[in-house]
Amino acid sequence: MSKEAFFISHFGSKHIGDDGAVVGNYVYSKDLFCEDIHFKRAWMSLEQIAQKSMLVNLSDAIAMNAKPCYALIGVVLPKQFSHAQLTELARGFEAMAKRYGVEIIGGDTTAGEKMMISITIVSTLQGKALERKNAKVGDLVAYTGKLGHSYKGLTRLLRGGSLSKKTRFIRPTLKANFVYKSAKYLSSGMDISDGLSKDLSRLLKESGNVGLHVKKKLPKRLLCSGEEYEMLFSFNPRHKQGILRIAQQTRTKINIIGHVARKRYRCVCKEHHF
Amino acid sequence: MSKEAFFISHFGSKHIGDDGAVVGNYVYSKDLFCEDIHFKRAWMSLEQIAQKSMLVNLSDAIAMNAKPCYALIGVVLPKQFSHAQLTELARGFEAMAKRYGVEIIGGDTTAGEKMMISITIVSTLQGKALERKNAKVGDLVAYTGKLGHSYKGLTRLLRGGSLSKKTRFIRPTLKANFVYKSAKYLSSGMDISDGLSKDLSRLLKESGNVGLHVKKKLPKRLLCSGEEYEMLFSFNPRHKQGILRIAQQTRTKINIIGHVARKRYRCVCKEHHF
Repeated sequence: MSKEAFFISHFGSKHIGDDGAVVGNYVYSKDLFCEDIHFKRAWMSLEQIAQKSMLVNLSDAIAMNAKPCYALIGVVLPKQFSHAQLTELARGFEAMAKRYGVEIIGGDTTAGEKMMISITIVSTLQGKALERKNAKVGDLVAYTGKLGHSYKGLTRLLRGGSLSKKTRFIRPTLKANFVYKSAKYLSSGMDISDGLSKDLSRLLKESGNVGLHVKKKLPKRLLCSGEEYEMLFSFNPRHKQGILRIAQQTRTKINIIGHVARKRYRCVCKEHHF
Repeated sequence: MSKEAFFISHFGSKHIGDDGAVVGNYVYSKDLFCEDIHFKRAWMSLEQIAQKSMLVNLSDAIAMNAKPCYALIGVVLPKQFSHAQLTELARGFEAMAKRYGVEIIGGDTTAGEKMMISITIVSTLQGKALERKNAKVGDLVAYTGKLGHSYKGLTRLLRGGSLSKKTRFIRPTLKANFVYKSAKYLSSGMDISDGLSKDLSRLLKESGNVGLHVKKKLPKRLLCSGEEYEMLFSFNPRHKQGILRIAQQTRTKINIIGHVARKRYRCVCKEHHF
């Protein structure tokens, strides 16, 4: 068990275990975005850092089939930040909030050596909550979009290279329309934040320690690429045509990778705390 | 304008400006609690750190006349933390959550050099929201409890001393019962987190740049003692007897310090970012 899982295991709430906590018609999600853990200042502008931190959090809400409404933003910022830098950061938050129809209703700032952004998103369910736990044996398993770009971007940055503004690593594309339209046909779903293999192992574990029968073996550069924010989901094969139709309508690429089986699934990637 | 105020001024939401954001019947509040900014590890046990970080956040909700229901906890923790340390920390969160009837519904953990705790509290209003902005000229201004102990405790810690478990600095007492019963009689209110004088200047500014006519000059050690988490509030003099009765019922000491006047109020304390 990871230290995170150990720490969280102390809280006996039934709401814990998904991308967000469902309470009535609301979903609450919260993620930390920390300098030198999730990003380096040299990699991205302050505006991009603010945008990505918002996207990462909005992704959690959308992955639960919820529409983000409000955001609370807590930031730890270096004392020497100028007013121009603060404006740039605020502009990044505001731009993403506006794009997704979210109102920033509060927050807190404090001084610190390293930047840290903690965002809480309040969202309203758009129908049933899309959770990790209901994948059934026989269900098809799929993900949206293309995987691997984020890892490629990260590798480039770690080697001292730079990325264009629109790359996946800097600005992931969320699949809100696809999720909202297809959620009623899906048995389980989550966003891919730690890599397809790692997140798949979580989904299958939450669904009663089931496994996956793969159609075709996928390469590690795809299985272990984190921070993709594509959707991973499962569905009963009878909904396949309906889901493919929605994918077409919303211009979403769908990749079916196999079906849920009894054999236990093991993550193929190394644990990394980069 | 402080950098915090400047940063926050970029977000044009009507919800910003109080201890929490009121949306319908809900109040959302979020505060950061950071190592070497708000606390030093040597000063308190991990359990006490967790407890105080919860109390600071619960105080915001209570100060708005709202009952805390759910908490989301984000923590940045040093990698070398042992399982025993994680348990101690979790125990602190759980103890305070239980005492105030709050369910911890989610959160996030990440590794970092310094501890940082970011808590979001979801609460439900117990009647009208108690805001900062409605103090009227002629209203009486008062605070609960005794002030100065927190500053005394902090000074002792900064000089290398230690504090008993029950001191105000380690475990502030929140005035929930008094607030819930008296809120209908109060014109404005907030908790004292940055010191009576600083917080009073905020309340009077939000109420239309009004001022204070003091009954008696108060000493700085009392005016500038932060992290007290006592309540500061104003009320029409006709409610004085009703409020004193509730104070007696709830065993809350009330100190009337003057009344709202037209002359602008200035904070007497030095800005400190300790």
